[in-house]
Amino acid sequence: MKRNIALEVAFDGTAYCGWQRQKEQRTIQGELEAAVIRLTGENSSVHGAGRTDAGVHALAMTAAFFTEGNIPADGILRGLNSILPDDIVVIRAIDAGADFHPRKSAVGKVYAYRLSFAFPALPTERLYCWQMSVKPDIEAMQTCMARLVGRHDFSSFEASGSRDPRAEGRGAVRTIFTAGLAPSGDDGVIIRVSGDGFLRHMVRNIVGTLIEAGRGRMSAEEFAAVMAAKDRAAAGPTAPARGLFLEKVFYKF
Amino acid sequence: MKRNIALEVAFDGTAYCGWQRQKEQRTIQGELEAAVIRLTGENSSVHGAGRTDAGVHALAMTAAFFTEGNIPADGILRGLNSILPDDIVVIRAIDAGADFHPRKSAVGKVYAYRLSFAFPALPTERLYCWQMSVKPDIEAMQTCMARLVGRHDFSSFEASGSRDPRAEGRGAVRTIFTAGLAPSGDDGVIIRVSGDGFLRHMVRNIVGTLIEAGRGRMSAEEFAAVMAAKDRAAAGPTAPARGLFLEKVFYKF
Repeated sequence: MKRNIALEVAFDGTAYCGWQRQKEQRTIQGELEAAVIRLTGENSSVHGAGRTDAGVHALAMTAAFFTEGNIPADGILRGLNSILPDDIVVIRAIDAGADFHPRKSAVGKVYAYRLSFAFPALPTERLYCWQMSVKPDIEAMQTCMARLVGRHDFSSFEASGSRDPRAEGRGAVRTIFTAGLAPSGDDGVIIRVSGDGFLRHMVRNIVGTLIEAGRGRMSAEEFAAVMAAKDRAAAGPTAPARGLFLEKVFYKF
Repeated sequence: MKRNIALEVAFDGTAYCGWQRQKEQRTIQGELEAAVIRLTGENSSVHGAGRTDAGVHALAMTAAFFTEGNIPADGILRGLNSILPDDIVVIRAIDAGADFHPRKSAVGKVYAYRLSFAFPALPTERLYCWQMSVKPDIEAMQTCMARLVGRHDFSSFEASGSRDPRAEGRGAVRTIFTAGLAPSGDDGVIIRVSGDGFLRHMVRNIVGTLIEAGRGRMSAEEFAAVMAAKDRAAAGPTAPARGLFLEKVFYKF
């Protein structure tokens, strides 16, 4: 019987065209599958908990692959890390149940978005945050974020023309569990959002719209109206990919 | 009369062979001089407060160049930043006195060295700290660091065969003003050292030796004996360049 190996994978997305395997492009999934083939000799697919855009990072993306081999899970962890490039690290490997699937079994995800207001912007931070020269109004952003929590149709924050065909009939309705903002260093904040699922570009479009509010261009009522409009054109611009981190994917035990 | 323009420059040293201009190598000084030539049309040398090794970063290196042009200082800042690559940023530009020299006028420097004990190591931090899987004994390191403060001969921490001919008769004697250790995030510390000058590899060799103490391989007395030996062979290994940041250069007013 095949073993189902579940992985948690951290990566620096800077050098990659996102998660999903693409011909003649470097992707996280592509690198992982190449490493699994080298380690096990088996041509396995590595499935992830979802896609990430080019330039987006992860502290813990969940992925899984099947193997007929008998390398113990901690040997798989060490073996993959010895093959993978420096910017992709397997942080956990375990034998999962046969019916575990990183995407279908997921019950929630946490994303973090880092903003930095250091001026001038520090070059050693440029790949891991959105650097802006003027600090937005944090309280105004927090007031808007409270409106995100709960079960809503998030069409306004979905990349246009991009509905995932695997969305299983939920349409654009998702439940946001928590939406908060915490200071990060002297000149930055981290926006952290958890929910049962996220549409394409959803977090980046939320952040871009919150920044509009933080710059005094949108009130909390207008933010609520953006959500109610169910229209991408009502929301703000898409925040840059480099500030976004997939922090964790949650599963039932 | 020529103007003497002083700059503070932040850079991500990852992609560079250090500060100093070298033929057919990318260096910070080389990039700055190319940008100054493009901006002013003058073939000026850009002098720095000192050299940095390949891979070392800076939050504020001081540099200066002479110009006969009349671009105001803030125009020079904006102009250079529009020409320079993303990983080098001019954070300040001012008209300095004619006799200001970034190295000769300097009275002190602050270096910071970042350690991370996150396990497994996060790929998004790999270029900006020394990632070690086992947390060293922080108290043991602090006890050793106290021995650094004051006026000492630091030959034991100097890269062998590397005395700077411009060292102006001080030999390897330097004065350390402060040496401390502060937590950084959940799983890291920053070692910060200020002094009137630093020998080649001095901070990295100090950090490498402190880690020996932090791993229980050296007592504070043995650390003091390493300093007293005035022999590079007595000290620990050189810590990786990627954890080191030149934070600030100080001048008399």
